[in-house]
Amino acid sequence: MNSDNDFQVQIKQKVQRIEGILQEYLPKQKGYQSVIMEAMGYSLLAGGKRLRPLMMQETFRLYNGTAKSLRPFMAAIEMIHTYSLVHDDLPAMDNDEYRRGRRTTHVVYGEDMGILTGDALLNYAFETAFKAFVIEPEDSLAIGRALTVLGDKAGIYGMIGGQVIDVKETGRRVSREVLCTIYRLKTAALIEASMMIGAILGGASEEEVRKVEKIAGYVGVAFQIQDDILDVTSTSETLGKPIHSDERNEKTTYVTLMGIPEAKKEVERLSKEAIGLLHELSGENAFLEKLLLQLIHRDR
Amino acid sequence: MNSDNDFQVQIKQKVQRIEGILQEYLPKQKGYQSVIMEAMGYSLLAGGKRLRPLMMQETFRLYNGTAKSLRPFMAAIEMIHTYSLVHDDLPAMDNDEYRRGRRTTHVVYGEDMGILTGDALLNYAFETAFKAFVIEPEDSLAIGRALTVLGDKAGIYGMIGGQVIDVKETGRRVSREVLCTIYRLKTAALIEASMMIGAILGGASEEEVRKVEKIAGYVGVAFQIQDDILDVTSTSETLGKPIHSDERNEKTTYVTLMGIPEAKKEVERLSKEAIGLLHELSGENAFLEKLLLQLIHRDR
Repeated sequence: MNSDNDFQVQIKQKVQRIEGILQEYLPKQKGYQSVIMEAMGYSLLAGGKRLRPLMMQETFRLYNGTAKSLRPFMAAIEMIHTYSLVHDDLPAMDNDEYRRGRRTTHVVYGEDMGILTGDALLNYAFETAFKAFVIEPEDSLAIGRALTVLGDKAGIYGMIGGQVIDVKETGRRVSREVLCTIYRLKTAALIEASMMIGAILGGASEEEVRKVEKIAGYVGVAFQIQDDILDVTSTSETLGKPIHSDERNEKTTYVTLMGIPEAKKEVERLSKEAIGLLHELSGENAFLEKLLLQLIHRDR
Repeated sequence: MNSDNDFQVQIKQKVQRIEGILQEYLPKQKGYQSVIMEAMGYSLLAGGKRLRPLMMQETFRLYNGTAKSLRPFMAAIEMIHTYSLVHDDLPAMDNDEYRRGRRTTHVVYGEDMGILTGDALLNYAFETAFKAFVIEPEDSLAIGRALTVLGDKAGIYGMIGGQVIDVKETGRRVSREVLCTIYRLKTAALIEASMMIGAILGGASEEEVRKVEKIAGYVGVAFQIQDDILDVTSTSETLGKPIHSDERNEKTTYVTLMGIPEAKKEVERLSKEAIGLLHELSGENAFLEKLLLQLIHRDR
């Protein structure tokens, strides 16, 4: 119990440091366009678990990485995650007015600025990652590999691809195969990017990076199925967002398709696969293992 | 007259080769998300002057550049330009149903897919540029510099910043200073990126790259003022898009602010500045000079 308490304190401290990194990398210079900087800050600093930068950092630690380029990439991955939420919430998409207990970006700044804030965050994510070239020019090749992963996993063969299938299939009953493709792309791809970039900048071999990708894939899909379970079994107070939103949006989820017991079983199976592979890696990081387990089995 | 004819044929041939590059870099691999690849192709291959990749290539030639990395950057800049048009046309923005005589992306594919197609093109632009790391890994540092310019000029201190001010000021009478800031950011920034990236990958010195940035800035603002002039003096048949759209959208333009004669004078002044600086550069490219002059003084 005490060790679990310690673990929660550790997470809290690490997340606070990540908040500092996000603050550091938000645009400072203002101008006539200052409203966009304000909207970017509003969207990015709205709380959240910061699990993507956290996982990137912990995978980096697994390899005893020392590269200073990690920091801009940690900020970049959270900016990409945030832009995807800002665009998801738009009236033409999910039309959500609240997220994490706060009004969504387009509600506060208008629909046009909602679109532009998402665009700005995506573009600024790459601008931020490019700062690595100035920090460690001698590592340009590794930075290039990390950027390639970031671009791929965020794009049409990753997160955006998942979002497209999701939008296309809303209102239809989709097969388990299509659903798992959506989860693999929409949710798991950015988690894969997070851990893979941590590994690449930490100095992992190509082979290890592939293993890390697999682990992250299992964790990402398990994370999403757990999300489906919580949407049915939790309360909006605990989650800080409306529950039963999947039902309202007529979305097929792992739970509507397979039922809660099967969904829980699948989370268990993916969790075991992930931890098994984690033990095969060359480095060790007990915190990372705990973190992955907690993410998969979280109650909010 | 004959030499002008030759020049038009040359442009046509160069643009055809650029179309080939765009085709080459469009995503090939399909999946459940294939509709997004289709929408990206629809948006990107809708014609247009291709002036950004053309200017990138001709600035590169000015320095007798040989880097193979230029090609993905030529495709990337056109993808960024295209995504900005796709998002500009959205109902929550300019709400345009036609562009270049064809239905806009959101009209054909729906508003949600319009948003996602823009996102996909922006992300894919960077993915495409990252291919340069595989083509010429030994040039990773120069590629990093080119990427930094691409990110900056497309973002909140460049194109998106201009778009934000433009959206914010629509319906109000803006000062000449604000208007020129909009033009410098919204239109000139991507032209600056095009020419600067051509110079960087062509091997130009830092100092030369700064000069190229200035030239492109003059050309970009002149190009936009010429756009304002044509919106009033041309026909929709010649332009291939609706005229008097600025008036309809209650937009302040250089023409509404200063009148047509002053606008024409300013185009002349900027044009002279640009050509003067061009002659100061270390390399020579007669085609580029002709091209810049034609862009500034075009009638459509």
